[in-house]
Amino acid sequence: MTMNRQVLLAATPEGVPVETDFRLAEVPRLAPGPGEVLVRNRYLSLDPYMRSQLAGRHLSGAIQPGDLMRGETVAEVVTSKHPAFAAGARVRGFGGWQEWAVLDGEALAPVPDRIQPPSLALSALGMPGLTAWAGLCCQAVPAPGDVLLVAAATGAVGSVVGQLGRARGCRVIGIAGSDEKCAYAVAELGYAACINRRSEDVAARLDALCPDGIDIYFDLVGGELLDLASARLAVGARVVLCGLMAEYNSSSRRPGPPPGDWIRARATVTGLVVYDYEDRREACLDELVPLVESGALRVREDVAEGIAAAPAAFCRLMRGENIGKALVKLA
Amino acid sequence: MTMNRQVLLAATPEGVPVETDFRLAEVPRLAPGPGEVLVRNRYLSLDPYMRSQLAGRHLSGAIQPGDLMRGETVAEVVTSKHPAFAAGARVRGFGGWQEWAVLDGEALAPVPDRIQPPSLALSALGMPGLTAWAGLCCQAVPAPGDVLLVAAATGAVGSVVGQLGRARGCRVIGIAGSDEKCAYAVAELGYAACINRRSEDVAARLDALCPDGIDIYFDLVGGELLDLASARLAVGARVVLCGLMAEYNSSSRRPGPPPGDWIRARATVTGLVVYDYEDRREACLDELVPLVESGALRVREDVAEGIAAAPAAFCRLMRGENIGKALVKLA
Repeated sequence: MTMNRQVLLAATPEGVPVETDFRLAEVPRLAPGPGEVLVRNRYLSLDPYMRSQLAGRHLSGAIQPGDLMRGETVAEVVTSKHPAFAAGARVRGFGGWQEWAVLDGEALAPVPDRIQPPSLALSALGMPGLTAWAGLCCQAVPAPGDVLLVAAATGAVGSVVGQLGRARGCRVIGIAGSDEKCAYAVAELGYAACINRRSEDVAARLDALCPDGIDIYFDLVGGELLDLASARLAVGARVVLCGLMAEYNSSSRRPGPPPGDWIRARATVTGLVVYDYEDRREACLDELVPLVESGALRVREDVAEGIAAAPAAFCRLMRGENIGKALVKLA
Repeated sequence: MTMNRQVLLAATPEGVPVETDFRLAEVPRLAPGPGEVLVRNRYLSLDPYMRSQLAGRHLSGAIQPGDLMRGETVAEVVTSKHPAFAAGARVRGFGGWQEWAVLDGEALAPVPDRIQPPSLALSALGMPGLTAWAGLCCQAVPAPGDVLLVAAATGAVGSVVGQLGRARGCRVIGIAGSDEKCAYAVAELGYAACINRRSEDVAARLDALCPDGIDIYFDLVGGELLDLASARLAVGARVVLCGLMAEYNSSSRRPGPPPGDWIRARATVTGLVVYDYEDRREACLDELVPLVESGALRVREDVAEGIAAAPAAFCRLMRGENIGKALVKLA
């Protein structure tokens, strides 16, 4: 009997997750029923939103101790009982933290040939890229010359926001958590400047870098940085609320900025849930694929090897120690 | 020599303003210089935003002890040294808390004939009406069947928002500060229901009245009501941030709702400053004047008599004791 190795949640984390919050399990590989597909997961995506699933605060639902960890994967179809997929097809779906998965064919999507290598279907040409494109191009709608501020500037979403903003003619300022990340943001991703939020006075640096205010703040973190950005918005600014990295490790919810800051700026603040943009994925790829192919959009992946390495990789992600999209290579 | 009676700020209020924060002065009436106009103020508008001017937090600038209180007036031109205005013309401008004013003709606007009686140029067909129309029709963009929540439901702005929303086909829920106001909102203004924020459990009432969530929250108050509304938004909701009545009497600024509430609802939150809509005032009147003339938009004014009555009337407004637009009749 072929076995399937999985990562389960062992205990709901308190604060920053640690490896012992997870455990490895080995279970028999299942066979697909009618309409289902057996896939072999090739790459697993690790994402900050998973932390809020563990806290029971994500709109996709909670993950409880004993549950299989959920996550998006790029996979290869092994046995299909769904007419849309043949063995050998390259697909994307929520295959979870495991080597094999039996999935409803209706919940799978083909990975188009223009996504090369296939891991990009989980990073710049996948959900993080779609998130960046939807928030920046559909919600914030950048104009040339706009000052665009991106926190988590080198992360899976932020790195695409920054480069896409630059391609659209914005002056892009980043905020990141280490000197190494800041150097990478400026040297490789084309940020005009990047502020180290751990070692620098972010407020003073923002005042110096954005004397006429911030036109777009793409918010992936919430917390104090959202307050600092909101206090420095230019008139007509747009704020995209997309993530709350700063509080994913916390058990309580933090209030937002004083509303007066948004009134003063006549700001337009929009909440972003990437699932709403699934039907615009092709339009997103139409813009992003040429940027990747031309080298205008650089993609860095932080790849762990093997399912057993997933917990440690996720904990690194939640400590902010990775640079680039966190992935686990499974086969 | 003809004298001019004025109200000056005597002391910056702490908390809710009291009459002794103001003092009456009598000064010689000035004569207009080139480009200026001498007007006799007929009606003075009293508005909650004045409290934030006293606190130094309004974008129009602070009012310091010893300063003339500022405010919008409807006035009659007495002597004009500006080509656009003749003696006898009915005008609107920032004439201040005084009987006479010398104003730059460039800062005056004629009151069109279709605004009858002229006090409406300070209420439903003036800045409060423009605020309501801009926030609801230009920013929130109501659709028939939308659930529209209005706090300060019977106030100068809120009463227009509610009635305009009803005319646009919304189901309108109000929040107000007394049983008398709530009864007035339902009986006279056409609200489907109105919650007494002082005596009722607002959260429970909102849950019962808006089981499918709130589509539009027109926020004139900030504070806890903004938190309660934000936690109950329907997907695709719009929030118009227009005033912070709940904290105008406070010396500190309160944080806003947790951003996660707006992400979950994919909300669009916009800050409103009515000055930005000055060039759309005619379009606003095109919609509001017929509603007033047909009786679909009812206007109630709370009129004090004489400049000496202005401080007490303003203090009543800031205690939430008035119903309808607070005005002072000056001559």
